[in-house]
Amino acid sequence: MAEPLRVALAGLGTVGTGVIRLLETNRAMVEGRAGRPIEIVAVSARDRARDRGVDLSSYAWVDDMQAMAERGDVNVVVELVGGADGPALTLARAALDAGKGLITANKAMVAHHGLALAELAALHSAPFKFEAAVAGGIPVVKGIREGAAANALDRIYGILNGTCNYILSEMERTGADFDDMLRSAQEKGYAEADPTFDVEGVDAAHKIAILAAIGFGARIDFEAVETTGIGEVRAADITQAKTLGYVVRLVGAAHLEDVGGRRSMLQRVRPCLVPLGHPLAAVKGPTNAVVAEGNFSGRLLFQGAGAGEGPTASAVVADLIDIARGDLGPPFSVSVDALETIMQADPGERQGRDYIRFSVNDRPGVLAEITAAMRDAGVSIESLIQHGRDHDGGEVLVAMVTHDGPERCVTKAIDLLDGSPSLTAPPLVMPILKD
Amino acid sequence: MAEPLRVALAGLGTVGTGVIRLLETNRAMVEGRAGRPIEIVAVSARDRARDRGVDLSSYAWVDDMQAMAERGDVNVVVELVGGADGPALTLARAALDAGKGLITANKAMVAHHGLALAELAALHSAPFKFEAAVAGGIPVVKGIREGAAANALDRIYGILNGTCNYILSEMERTGADFDDMLRSAQEKGYAEADPTFDVEGVDAAHKIAILAAIGFGARIDFEAVETTGIGEVRAADITQAKTLGYVVRLVGAAHLEDVGGRRSMLQRVRPCLVPLGHPLAAVKGPTNAVVAEGNFSGRLLFQGAGAGEGPTASAVVADLIDIARGDLGPPFSVSVDALETIMQADPGERQGRDYIRFSVNDRPGVLAEITAAMRDAGVSIESLIQHGRDHDGGEVLVAMVTHDGPERCVTKAIDLLDGSPSLTAPPLVMPILKD
Repeated sequence: MAEPLRVALAGLGTVGTGVIRLLETNRAMVEGRAGRPIEIVAVSARDRARDRGVDLSSYAWVDDMQAMAERGDVNVVVELVGGADGPALTLARAALDAGKGLITANKAMVAHHGLALAELAALHSAPFKFEAAVAGGIPVVKGIREGAAANALDRIYGILNGTCNYILSEMERTGADFDDMLRSAQEKGYAEADPTFDVEGVDAAHKIAILAAIGFGARIDFEAVETTGIGEVRAADITQAKTLGYVVRLVGAAHLEDVGGRRSMLQRVRPCLVPLGHPLAAVKGPTNAVVAEGNFSGRLLFQGAGAGEGPTASAVVADLIDIARGDLGPPFSVSVDALETIMQADPGERQGRDYIRFSVNDRPGVLAEITAAMRDAGVSIESLIQHGRDHDGGEVLVAMVTHDGPERCVTKAIDLLDGSPSLTAPPLVMPILKD
Repeated sequence: MAEPLRVALAGLGTVGTGVIRLLETNRAMVEGRAGRPIEIVAVSARDRARDRGVDLSSYAWVDDMQAMAERGDVNVVVELVGGADGPALTLARAALDAGKGLITANKAMVAHHGLALAELAALHSAPFKFEAAVAGGIPVVKGIREGAAANALDRIYGILNGTCNYILSEMERTGADFDDMLRSAQEKGYAEADPTFDVEGVDAAHKIAILAAIGFGARIDFEAVETTGIGEVRAADITQAKTLGYVVRLVGAAHLEDVGGRRSMLQRVRPCLVPLGHPLAAVKGPTNAVVAEGNFSGRLLFQGAGAGEGPTASAVVADLIDIARGDLGPPFSVSVDALETIMQADPGERQGRDYIRFSVNDRPGVLAEITAAMRDAGVSIESLIQHGRDHDGGEVLVAMVTHDGPERCVTKAIDLLDGSPSLTAPPLVMPILKD
């Protein structure tokens, strides 16, 4: 048997202890597939005293993460500390600088510093992998980087945040409003005490930026991801969507457009209306799902648990097995200098249909005002529904679905209505996902 | 730029020309991801004169496949000839014997001779890959072999035959009977002129045997796959299933059982009732989908086009890219001598619920006869539906759903009724897939 692959594990939260449990439980099988043993030799975390329910006595405890990265007996550092910068990034750099492999589940760090880390990895001929950073246990980074490698992809999209999907599908099931379901998600451990990154779409934005880079051969451009969270989605929107044949899902999407050989990319995270027959409509609870559309493969769907101890540990150890058996290819499928800088597409050019919901005062003339703005902006209305009073009193909801048209016109209509005393809240626009 | 990977392509049917088109269309991208050019140098097929809509003039035409495998300028042979034995197997052996890599889309050959070929490949340190042999363009071989590598899997199942899924979902949509939808599938090119391998489940059996070997670390045991096709499924069964909250799908399934450390495996292809909420229920038309359940990952789903020129070519070229970038691991995830011989499980021990449909003469006492047989065999009936007359005249359909119980009892009940003059056709038993 070949030399073991020796691993230093930084961060002993849920995922870290999951990795330890997995390597204990599936030891023989992992060794068989890796072609050699995978051994944890050192661990590090903030609080040494905390009981984590796993036996750490056979691993060296290292307080100084920098020192851990430089240990002579370590081949690969697994970074599970979290945070885009700070200790996680310091550790990641130290590991690669020392010529060690780096595995991380840290989507924020990869979205912000993935290219710099990939360059550092190439410089030191060290492997760098992050399957666990996107969609938990689903092997979608590998699926796009290798499984779909023969294809030019033009769309990658999916349900990338389990917290939001749990909240939206529970709103759908129970008819309750966002705030109630957020509390329920927190009680069940599907949402953090501070849920901002999840419900505002930032977490999904990290993930779609990473997938777009791999799938399109593009330099990561996280700053360009237009991000809207689910906080403005009301129970009434979900009910309305249902009567129209849709469900509401937070969709992270990256589209590649090629106009006369000039490639541009639109990256977005937005609540969308998903047609009931679409595979994403059936994705409920904390499940994640990613669709990649290739010019030869057609539509590929990868689905599974997007978070949690077991699934995330499964992805981390899959990366370890790849490294152990010598699969050391570039993390973004080509070297960083071969990644293209792709300009941002003008979202106004997007052709599609939208759901638009207005919250308005219940008085005469409001509907005329809204429809006039639509007409003046060139938005063609497919159907329009006026709800009765909302629970808040004098407020009424007006929802509409537009015909296919450029997004620019919808934006203009919303602008025309900006500041109107008829509106009691900013309108909510949700694109309708194409089937 | 490194040396090109030089490819010989045997078989120029739909998939072969698809591979040529893909390598032309996506040339630069494939080269970028492979780290070097992938060049076809020689091609071979039965009929040189046939117009295939692709330009073959830059490739050497070789009539003798054996000679093709031994050419000095070839690194990898892509076998797209088809057939479990005969010329395909001769070519595959010749290629590996000559130390060339082997890629195949030939599920029959892999199911029957995959282990021998893998041994030959190991002997000559030659790569052997067959992503295209299972579920067309879906990277499920890689997904299970590498993506889920950290897991002990205990269930792998899915919709593995697009022809059957097209027929069943069209029967569901139109209410038509099997024969009509088979004709429609043939007209649309979703079924062969001789559809036996597809509709009798043999094709799905090849695929599930391959996936079970990879996922469970087991020696392929194709002969042990219990196979039932879809020819006996009637429109009335699909209607009945729908009223009960199910759809009918041909499911290929491999279950691993571990009783006191003694592993046994049940491999089956059968029409099943799939609950409407299950991801497989939403899979319609010629789409394929595979579920793998791991002890850490939980349930993973891979879905996409299961056949066709583009998707299958996508899988073949993904294998070529893997070989080009040096990913040469064992095709069954561990070496052949590390694969376990896993005994066949007794299907009678399977616990579950079944749908059973009897075709009976419309005369008094028939229902009493059937229910008595159920009672005597120890089958507990959850619900029983007696249909009106079928279109054939005096025949009546009696359908029932059993409570959870051992399959042995259902088999015994069917045996007790064997030869009864009340039955006009053999009963149809369809297991109900667990959610």
